[in-house]
Amino acid sequence: MGSDSDLPKMKKAAEVLDSFGVRYFMTVASAHRTPERVIEIAKRAESEGWKVLIAGAGMAAHLAGFLAAHTVVPIVGIPMDASSLGGIDALLSTVQMPGGVPVACMGLGSSGAKNAGLFAVEMLACFDAALRQKLNEYRNEQRNLIEKKAEAVENHR
Amino acid sequence: MGSDSDLPKMKKAAEVLDSFGVRYFMTVASAHRTPERVIEIAKRAESEGWKVLIAGAGMAAHLAGFLAAHTVVPIVGIPMDASSLGGIDALLSTVQMPGGVPVACMGLGSSGAKNAGLFAVEMLACFDAALRQKLNEYRNEQRNLIEKKAEAVENHR
Amino acid sequence: MGSDSDLPKMKKAAEVLDSFGVRYFMTVASAHRTPERVIEIAKRAESEGWKVLIAGAGMAAHLAGFLAAHTVVPIVGIPMDASSLGGIDALLSTVQMPGGVPVACMGLGSSGAKNAGLFAVEMLACFDAALRQKLNEYRNEQRNLIEKKAEAVENHR
Amino acid sequence: MGSDSDLPKMKKAAEVLDSFGVRYFMTVASAHRTPERVIEIAKRAESEGWKVLIAGAGMAAHLAGFLAAHTVVPIVGIPMDASSLGGIDALLSTVQMPGGVPVACMGLGSSGAKNAGLFAVEMLACFDAALRQKLNEYRNEQRNLIEKKAEAVENHR
Amino acid sequence: MGSDSDLPKMKKAAEVLDSFGVRYFMTVASAHRTPERVIEIAKRAESEGWKVLIAGAGMAAHLAGFLAAHTVVPIVGIPMDASSLGGIDALLSTVQMPGGVPVACMGLGSSGAKNAGLFAVEMLACFDAALRQKLNEYRNEQRNLIEKKAEAVENHR
Amino acid sequence: MGSDSDLPKMKKAAEVLDSFGVRYFMTVASAHRTPERVIEIAKRAESEGWKVLIAGAGMAAHLAGFLAAHTVVPIVGIPMDASSLGGIDALLSTVQMPGGVPVACMGLGSSGAKNAGLFAVEMLACFDAALRQKLNEYRNEQRNLIEKKAEAVENHR
Amino acid sequence: MGSDSDLPKMKKAAEVLDSFGVRYFMTVASAHRTPERVIEIAKRAESEGWKVLIAGAGMAAHLAGFLAAHTVVPIVGIPMDASSLGGIDALLSTVQMPGGVPVACMGLGSSGAKNAGLFAVEMLACFDAALRQKLNEYRNEQRNLIEKKAEAVENHR
Amino acid sequence: MGSDSDLPKMKKAAEVLDSFGVRYFMTVASAHRTPERVIEIAKRAESEGWKVLIAGAGMAAHLAGFLAAHTVVPIVGIPMDASSLGGIDALLSTVQMPGGVPVACMGLGSSGAKNAGLFAVEMLACFDAALRQKLNEYRNEQRNLIEKKAEAVENHR
Repeated sequence: MGSDSDLPKMKKAAEVLDSFGVRYFMTVASAHRTPERVIEIAKRAESEGWKVLIAGAGMAAHLAGFLAAHTVVPIVGIPMDASSLGGIDALLSTVQMPGGVPVACMGLGSSGAKNAGLFAVEMLACFDAALRQKLNEYRNEQRNLIEKKAEAVENHR
Repeated sequence: MGSDSDLPKMKKAAEVLDSFGVRYFMTVASAHRTPERVIEIAKRAESEGWKVLIAGAGMAAHLAGFLAAHTVVPIVGIPMDASSLGGIDALLSTVQMPGGVPVACMGLGSSGAKNAGLFAVEMLACFDAALRQKLNEYRNEQRNLIEKKAEAVENHR
Repeated sequence: MGSDSDLPKMKKAAEVLDSFGVRYFMTVASAHRTPERVIEIAKRAESEGWKVLIAGAGMAAHLAGFLAAHTVVPIVGIPMDASSLGGIDALLSTVQMPGGVPVACMGLGSSGAKNAGLFAVEMLACFDAALRQKLNEYRNEQRNLIEKKAEAVENHR
Repeated sequence: MGSDSDLPKMKKAAEVLDSFGVRYFMTVASAHRTPERVIEIAKRAESEGWKVLIAGAGMAAHLAGFLAAHTVVPIVGIPMDASSLGGIDALLSTVQMPGGVPVACMGLGSSGAKNAGLFAVEMLACFDAALRQKLNEYRNEQRNLIEKKAEAVENHR
Repeated sequence: MGSDSDLPKMKKAAEVLDSFGVRYFMTVASAHRTPERVIEIAKRAESEGWKVLIAGAGMAAHLAGFLAAHTVVPIVGIPMDASSLGGIDALLSTVQMPGGVPVACMGLGSSGAKNAGLFAVEMLACFDAALRQKLNEYRNEQRNLIEKKAEAVENHR
Repeated sequence: MGSDSDLPKMKKAAEVLDSFGVRYFMTVASAHRTPERVIEIAKRAESEGWKVLIAGAGMAAHLAGFLAAHTVVPIVGIPMDASSLGGIDALLSTVQMPGGVPVACMGLGSSGAKNAGLFAVEMLACFDAALRQKLNEYRNEQRNLIEKKAEAVENHR
Repeated sequence: MGSDSDLPKMKKAAEVLDSFGVRYFMTVASAHRTPERVIEIAKRAESEGWKVLIAGAGMAAHLAGFLAAHTVVPIVGIPMDASSLGGIDALLSTVQMPGGVPVACMGLGSSGAKNAGLFAVEMLACFDAALRQKLNEYRNEQRNLIEKKAEAVENHR
Repeated sequence: MGSDSDLPKMKKAAEVLDSFGVRYFMTVASAHRTPERVIEIAKRAESEGWKVLIAGAGMAAHLAGFLAAHTVVPIVGIPMDASSLGGIDALLSTVQMPGGVPVACMGLGSSGAKNAGLFAVEMLACFDAALRQKLNEYRNEQRNLIEKKAEAVENHR
């Protein structure tokens, strides 16, 4: 993440990875204030065989694109709604990458962070049948939860 | 893709996959006009072991989210700039997925389509060293191309 | 509604239907988390002769379009202002349907929910003179209320 | 429609109604330049038992709301993309109606016009089994068309 | 004003008129809920020789345009920031009038209301030298106030 | 106007004034490139008894606000759609004036220019019965024109 | 700054200048309410050899452009998020200057104010080696701070 | 510049520098495709004593911010209108820099490029009286040009 102030939202990605038993490393690195640190992480990702990098940043959110410039390991970007513009600045800065250097952009804020974790699991699950099954179980739980809530709403009146 | 009118842009994804020797299947399926067809594709993806689904659509672009609702295979969405609003409708419809059902959103139009192809290759390359090497070569070519253009601009005056 | 967190706003639609004595069924079904449930509701609507489906959802609000894809029963969509973007994401995701599969979009949030209920009543009232009369009475009450408030403001100074 | 310059787009609604054999009356009436004419149409709609009013207008598109203010017959609004802002002005002016006076907003421009015609047919079809069947046939044709296009795209390479 | 909930902001216009000794009449009239009342006010304005009509409304703010449609007395519109979109809906609904029926749009909310009062005074002051002088005095007071604040800020450190 | 490139649009204001027999002076003055010239015009307006100043400018459109800062003669601003943003920059720069210094903003581009001319006439007509009558005749002509177009559209099929 | 209500944000610029030992003068001057004061400051800047002018204003933020019109001393503008539109009005009013009269626009609000101070220091540091070194030390401190926070986040679990 | 396709617009900056006799070096370097090249330029700027870096880029325009991350030499950014969103993506990606790493953002496209050149000259002119005088002459020429155009418009009728 680009700033430790993003931790409460970015934690959602970590929680997903924890719940699926996927190992990860979480840290702070700013594209603008610690560029060397970002480059170093991008390089380590490739040499150490990491499968995905998740980058969350707000405002002129360059972190995901900056990582993408330094590695061909897949990058997932999460735009943070950290400005008075509701995050549209971070969203466009993350998603509108030029042709040739992809970033996979998630939605804004904590929903996006949660989905970044899930998308990483989905990527791994293409090559890991046990993880795939856990994902399908997760979806079942989601469905059951909605159905329970539906029942509550139906009985609400 | 949601409509065959998107073909000129979506072809950019196919061209990338061709150039990396990645097999794929390209077709048209509309979330709103052929929902069963979309569901069937989502199911096949999982049963046949496809590694990624790339969905391009414009306006209220529901195709990527619709696929994501029916499978845990990773979904990459490309918003098409097919309306008078320059594509901001398709972009928000694709990227702002609720927590629990991720879509990896690329940029608008043909840049986004090209990057969707590249991102798919990056995902596969995590488990395929030869593909990883090709990606790094591709990046080198990009760099060389820019450097040639730079030279041309420097000598322009 | 796509999530039970929308209940406080969606209730406005129910209250209108209650006050006009129109029977309805209210539940939760998520386009992305319970797609089969949504399809089942769409099918029931047609087979059981429901006259209208009202769908409220936020963010990449696909619920109304998803229902519309599975039935020709009229769909009324209510975009929820449930993101940091003030709901413009849900609005565009609901209203910008491609030609061929209509959704009738209301305004954002609770005003939209109230109007969804009223629009449903207006549709039924085309074939029900008593309901038509009640609608005109409702309009009269609205007018009287404004006139009373006008008087209060005029006497304010 | 609010101006005869909208005819090429608004015609799409008429064509749909023609193809379904639904009778209609098409004219020009401007909320700002011929308000009495608009009011007269609103009144006739109620007294003559019209089932729906379709209003297309651009810029500060007040036509649909203006009609809605004068009748409880259902109003369908189509925002025209007739300004340098791509139609977002007309869209917000049409859809953001205050609670109490609903307008059913379609998408921008000719897609919206086509869908306005279809939505009107869907409303009538709730009370007309033959029309309902035609709608389902129309959907089948749409599906077949997409499938043919899909085949063409699949064989494209 | 279109709703008595706008009173706290619209009062700013009244306060300006009070401070300049300009007579006015303040009331509530909704374009959508009391259209006849709005038309009646528009007609009275012309027959009774009012010099200006000030209309404040939010969301799909049709009040100013609605008045303008029924009279050639100058209309000043104030868009209210009364929705989750920060008032951009009301702003575009008020300002983007079609050629032929002008509305003079002020800024959003209470600044706009204050300026509507001042603009009305400026209009009258073109034909009233005493009022013109008061306006210039008001500007002087504004300047003095800023200069005092400037001094405070300069001495702040 | 801020630039002679605005002439084709600003001419619409002049044409309206011509058609109503209202005298005016049209020139170019840039807030940023000829500020003294703008100030001089603002001062002349007050000393020579002009009744209104109409200012059209694009991008960061400061001309209307700049004039307003130097005179209490009423200012009408026309935002020009002269940038890649469709004029939303000029619109917000013109309309969002701080409390205390009003600008009456018209719509974007040539519709706005036409309405600026008409609004100026409406202001004068409050003190000139003959002009008032001409305005009402103009409205009648507008109505007749629409009615003729309506007839053409009704007979179109 | 255009209003003393901007002081809490504009102070960030002053704090930066203080910490680098750069002399400055901070005051309030409104483009619209005290235009002569603004012109006087612009003239003093040139005659007294100031190196940069920093202007912060909200809404239709004309202050930076207004200064730029009266001097060729470099102007840095800070758009304030002081309206219901999140500051997009001030941002576009500040940044979209016509060709010929530049304003250097910073980001919205207090981040922008901080950066305005830093940018001013960077400008001076081009001609002052000691200041340049302090800037590099400042960057080092920023880096160290991030690294400490990174460590905290890494140990968070 | 980030791509040689930006040359027609970026050339405006070069033309300004040429006309003022300011030496410069113009090249292409992409933040995402040639990050090392960008870093190298940033380092050279500092070691070789360049006074300013001008960076133009479109879409998720990271070039200016990327340079700013690697040097304390002043960075001027020009957002290019190179996408279907009219450049608002590039504008927000350039201007919304986090506190601590400033970028001076100009307007969109060729006006912005021209102003970037002028702003660079203004920065140098603070330490170069001859350049300062040339700038004032340039302003005079601008004024004379406008005055000539004003005369043409005044005599237009």
